[in-house]
Amino acid sequence: MNASATPAAPFVHVHRVRFDEVDAAGIVYFARFFTWCHDTMEAMLAPLEGGYTALVTKRRLGLPAVHVEADYRSPLRFGDEVLVEATVERLGTSSVALRFEMLRSPGREPVAVLRHVVSLVDLGALRARPLPDDVRRVFEGYLQARG
Amino acid sequence: MNASATPAAPFVHVHRVRFDEVDAAGIVYFARFFTWCHDTMEAMLAPLEGGYTALVTKRRLGLPAVHVEADYRSPLRFGDEVLVEATVERLGTSSVALRFEMLRSPGREPVAVLRHVVSLVDLGALRARPLPDDVRRVFEGYLQARG
Amino acid sequence: MNASATPAAPFVHVHRVRFDEVDAAGIVYFARFFTWCHDTMEAMLAPLEGGYTALVTKRRLGLPAVHVEADYRSPLRFGDEVLVEATVERLGTSSVALRFEMLRSPGREPVAVLRHVVSLVDLGALRARPLPDDVRRVFEGYLQARG
Amino acid sequence: MNASATPAAPFVHVHRVRFDEVDAAGIVYFARFFTWCHDTMEAMLAPLEGGYTALVTKRRLGLPAVHVEADYRSPLRFGDEVLVEATVERLGTSSVALRFEMLRSPGREPVAVLRHVVSLVDLGALRARPLPDDVRRVFEGYLQARG
Repeated sequence: MNASATPAAPFVHVHRVRFDEVDAAGIVYFARFFTWCHDTMEAMLAPLEGGYTALVTKRRLGLPAVHVEADYRSPLRFGDEVLVEATVERLGTSSVALRFEMLRSPGREPVAVLRHVVSLVDLGALRARPLPDDVRRVFEGYLQARG
Repeated sequence: MNASATPAAPFVHVHRVRFDEVDAAGIVYFARFFTWCHDTMEAMLAPLEGGYTALVTKRRLGLPAVHVEADYRSPLRFGDEVLVEATVERLGTSSVALRFEMLRSPGREPVAVLRHVVSLVDLGALRARPLPDDVRRVFEGYLQARG
Repeated sequence: MNASATPAAPFVHVHRVRFDEVDAAGIVYFARFFTWCHDTMEAMLAPLEGGYTALVTKRRLGLPAVHVEADYRSPLRFGDEVLVEATVERLGTSSVALRFEMLRSPGREPVAVLRHVVSLVDLGALRARPLPDDVRRVFEGYLQARG
Repeated sequence: MNASATPAAPFVHVHRVRFDEVDAAGIVYFARFFTWCHDTMEAMLAPLEGGYTALVTKRRLGLPAVHVEADYRSPLRFGDEVLVEATVERLGTSSVALRFEMLRSPGREPVAVLRHVVSLVDLGALRARPLPDDVRRVFEGYLQARG
């Protein structure tokens, strides 16, 4: 890919912090951020026939996490609106590295950056399988250009 | 059952309010109480071979809720310890009416009273089935005497 | 109110069952339905200045549950879409009785009916207070006519 | 520390997978593992006067996550028992790097390894503060020796 390549636009998911997502410190409980990333991945996969749901329930395939990480920069409180901007950092035979940048809305103050490496498996044996073409195509649409 | 019958002792489960169980008002989110009742029912069914887990995963039977209700009396905060005292109010062919009295510990201040009516179903068809003998026996041990 | 009164249209909230909302029986965990009702109430209160968030965080008022109940009719699975149709059954000085009818979408198959009685309190002392006018007005808009 | 130093024994917390902790793929939802780590840290801090609860609610200090990560090795299902073995990898002025090794019980099959870097903050301003002596002492008890 040449240097002038435009990076893929991220997939954007909007979340508003719910009443029950904070903890006893009054800020969003750190583990919830991962749920929003999963929700974002599900939304990203909506172009599949029947969406992520049909992938799981009809084709019996899934994308469990192999590795995840999060860097927290600014706490969120009840009612805050957050943009989750998702891109694909790497696309392997059966694995996908997703990057989720969370930004406060409005103003785009950095809130957190998360990374998920997921692997396509068949849900019977939980064995890795090559990404089906339709799934690969969705992820390719968000693959970041490398200079 | 005659008038002098001693009521069955309740099954007691202890829960300590976790960091992430409160809401933006700083008190335990009202829906969590139902989870503690389910946890209590699971613990109550531990005498089954393999516990509630084997009932669900091996015998493919379950006890989904048909009706539940809760009356809240005193709010709980992070770190509070609560006793969940469970009794059986009614035992039908396939249904069980459970009563959960929640009390602050120590001191036994009333916190909430919940009721669950659950029905034994096979998890394939989700159809009601008569309670298996071993399940019935566990619940009978907590059946309240009626005068 | 006369016999020809049109009942208020319900407030409608749409929820799609998330990947993590099911339980080990493969159907939506019964306690999650209450969360969707709370989400619906929050959405209903959006016309307040700053929404339910500002009521809680700025005015330090809240609407904790005093009594809730649920009747479950048809199980939900991952990816199902559900309509939550909310109406107000009774409006007291400080309490509100809300009714939430859940219907599968499309088709409107009955899924569950839930009732919440909530009470307006100040979040410092957790004492009941009369409903402020703006809050009362929102709920009045969904008050069911009685023949 | 000399080469013969015995590494600190880990703090061990036991968790049994609950009915509502699995997802639509039938295995434990990946974000729940972080909650068990937090529960483990809370349990580890029980020697503080009033435990982690009093640290948060009375002293208004907390230990929010700055960075967390997880490597998943073997999926868990409803009813599985897991050991969470926690050690301290690094102890800074206000930050603590915790390592959580999760092992299936019995048998000690590796399930997951998680790392949390938390920072002591005052919950008013959410500013980093030096670890109080009593908190530091608890974490020192689990600090791994370095050769």
